[in-house]
Amino acid sequence: MKNLIVGQSGGPTAVINSSLYGVVSEALGHSDAIGKVYGMVNGIEGFLEGNVLDFREALPGDKLEGLKFTPGAYLGSCRYKLPDSLEDPVFPQLFQKFEEMEIGYFFYIGGNDSMDTVSKLSRYAEKIGSDIIVMGEPKTIDNDLTLTDHTPGFGSAARYVASTVREIVLDASVYETKSVTIVEIMGRHAGWLTAASVLARRFEGDNPLLVYLPEAAFEEEVFLKQVEQALEKNCNVVVCVSEGIRDGKGTFICEYDRSVGTDRFGHKMLAGCGKYLENLIRDRFGIKARSVELNVSQRCSASMMSETDQKEAVLAGQFGVQAALKGETGKMVSYVRESNDPYRISCGLEDVNDICNQEKTVPAEWITNDGSDLSDAFTAYARPLVQGKVDVPLGEDGLPAFVWRK
Amino acid sequence: MKNLIVGQSGGPTAVINSSLYGVVSEALGHSDAIGKVYGMVNGIEGFLEGNVLDFREALPGDKLEGLKFTPGAYLGSCRYKLPDSLEDPVFPQLFQKFEEMEIGYFFYIGGNDSMDTVSKLSRYAEKIGSDIIVMGEPKTIDNDLTLTDHTPGFGSAARYVASTVREIVLDASVYETKSVTIVEIMGRHAGWLTAASVLARRFEGDNPLLVYLPEAAFEEEVFLKQVEQALEKNCNVVVCVSEGIRDGKGTFICEYDRSVGTDRFGHKMLAGCGKYLENLIRDRFGIKARSVELNVSQRCSASMMSETDQKEAVLAGQFGVQAALKGETGKMVSYVRESNDPYRISCGLEDVNDICNQEKTVPAEWITNDGSDLSDAFTAYARPLVQGKVDVPLGEDGLPAFVWRK
Repeated sequence: MKNLIVGQSGGPTAVINSSLYGVVSEALGHSDAIGKVYGMVNGIEGFLEGNVLDFREALPGDKLEGLKFTPGAYLGSCRYKLPDSLEDPVFPQLFQKFEEMEIGYFFYIGGNDSMDTVSKLSRYAEKIGSDIIVMGEPKTIDNDLTLTDHTPGFGSAARYVASTVREIVLDASVYETKSVTIVEIMGRHAGWLTAASVLARRFEGDNPLLVYLPEAAFEEEVFLKQVEQALEKNCNVVVCVSEGIRDGKGTFICEYDRSVGTDRFGHKMLAGCGKYLENLIRDRFGIKARSVELNVSQRCSASMMSETDQKEAVLAGQFGVQAALKGETGKMVSYVRESNDPYRISCGLEDVNDICNQEKTVPAEWITNDGSDLSDAFTAYARPLVQGKVDVPLGEDGLPAFVWRK
Repeated sequence: MKNLIVGQSGGPTAVINSSLYGVVSEALGHSDAIGKVYGMVNGIEGFLEGNVLDFREALPGDKLEGLKFTPGAYLGSCRYKLPDSLEDPVFPQLFQKFEEMEIGYFFYIGGNDSMDTVSKLSRYAEKIGSDIIVMGEPKTIDNDLTLTDHTPGFGSAARYVASTVREIVLDASVYETKSVTIVEIMGRHAGWLTAASVLARRFEGDNPLLVYLPEAAFEEEVFLKQVEQALEKNCNVVVCVSEGIRDGKGTFICEYDRSVGTDRFGHKMLAGCGKYLENLIRDRFGIKARSVELNVSQRCSASMMSETDQKEAVLAGQFGVQAALKGETGKMVSYVRESNDPYRISCGLEDVNDICNQEKTVPAEWITNDGSDLSDAFTAYARPLVQGKVDVPLGEDGLPAFVWRK
């Protein structure tokens, strides 16, 4: 009987451990077909150093449940990319380790780069005639993987963005002084997460009044004009921007400042685009301006986890194991949207070679003509993904009780 | 029968509307003694412009309950400070408006500056022999009001800080590369909120390993030595700092950078101390460093509201009205801690003149000798204040349902 090993790679999300829970719990449930259930610590990089754990020992019994409420990456992560050439000695090295540990099933949870690892391992397995099953589980808050309706991790990050922006809008509205608040949201190439800020609106004409994604060219003068118009009707204007907004020439707005600002060590200042736009507005309009960078909480907030996202992540993990047991390999688990109202998805399988190193951006037709808002089609797409809140168990200290490797 | 009016002032908190709920619901319950229950929109400044609402119309029936779950300031706020001289014409102007609206009870919810307003109005009332009752309700995330065990708003902000730092620690621990994460927390003069980050620790020796408050002089070389020592034993070090840390000469660390950095408009760059320390560490140790500014979510996060804080804020509001009906005036409602285990408080009244324009900082004996940690006495003090989570009602869109002025 062969063993299963699972790893996590790339940046963490609120539900990457829910996917892990899905894989591990499903594998443990097939004790007739799967022997040991291993985790590689710090991804393929840690695996190469022999850093593995046995889930039956690490999280026995009910302790496994804790994964569903724990953000971050329980197994640790890495940014290691396998070499492009399948002739590289790392491949036989890896497969020898697989053989030593009697691995029959290799699962990797991650984004684009991780799917590249899945692709290479499955191609190498085919090349040498190994019957090892290699399966990818999607994960990214950026929602930029192709061939899947959305990605595990996006719904929770989107819920965090929408709820937090709604709170910031309240916070920004308490004074009667004209003000502009810039909220900088993660997403260097794809604006999905920034787009989710429109879900924060409570009524027609509510903040955030302006939303800018990397998918549309950001022109300073057009932006200032739009802010000016928004200020005519509203005392407090909230603007949401992706960290990766860029101008028509492709220059990132966050790089504008670097050309001038230096810290006292002589380094260029890496102020974000939010800070830059804050200064720009203060300079142009002479009004109160501030910027808020939502930062890492977008990907690690347990309290804002979307129940839909969490459940789907578990489902994707389970589905992957079931597919592996049917002999599927070189695939990534995908979500297929079957219906919007009522919202319903099923899991599917896609060839990982068609996914890795690709990027799915927000469709141009979902961005309104003036480049500062999203259409209703986006809202209809995104709304179901942020539904439901998760009751995170509290520890004796009254704070969220997470699980971690000792 | 006289009417009651209540206002909010200064920066918002997660529970300033819970205090408002306490005042309004209690006042409405005394319809035999109190006529109309008014709210002044945008504090005393809005009141001077005649901007008031009637709570029976604005939030009829069950709608009032929504205040308990809504961060920000429902009534709007202001930063207006009454003139020091009671001879100023604004005082008779205000009292004439009180008379016109038949105000018998004036409630103001706020921090130091708001208590200054309460002090002046009550002294002016005494001076002219007016029988108007003037009462202060405490509010500040900074916990820096004297003569009260703690302040409404602190517990929720502290819960936000502790939970979020715990999540950031998980996020910071996924890679096996040495790294330092600086978390910058609100508090320019008092370090209470930064101190609350120690509640994030899950076990002895857990992150955050270093915590720096404005109350202890921050010396760069000592700090670097402490970081170096922490890195010897830990791969990923999380450091929490108050925005207001300063060196032995009293210079704010966040002002170090300003002397050099300029943006392209020629303005000095206002980088926070977190950004400064991030650069300092990268420069000195050549390792991965990043900084996270927790920003406004500290004071407006509904999802992290502390149930204890919320309930006490309501209680303080109710208690103030009860005291006012007994004829008390010129007072601020305070919390008196009766027992730590089990945690129990009662409400008291303090002369507002002894509170306004004072500042309560973290006691020196609660800061450890090397200035980078808190003693168990602080934990025993703070732990009860962050207990319990609040189930914020969700709207039809699945996101927190808040109330707001139309």
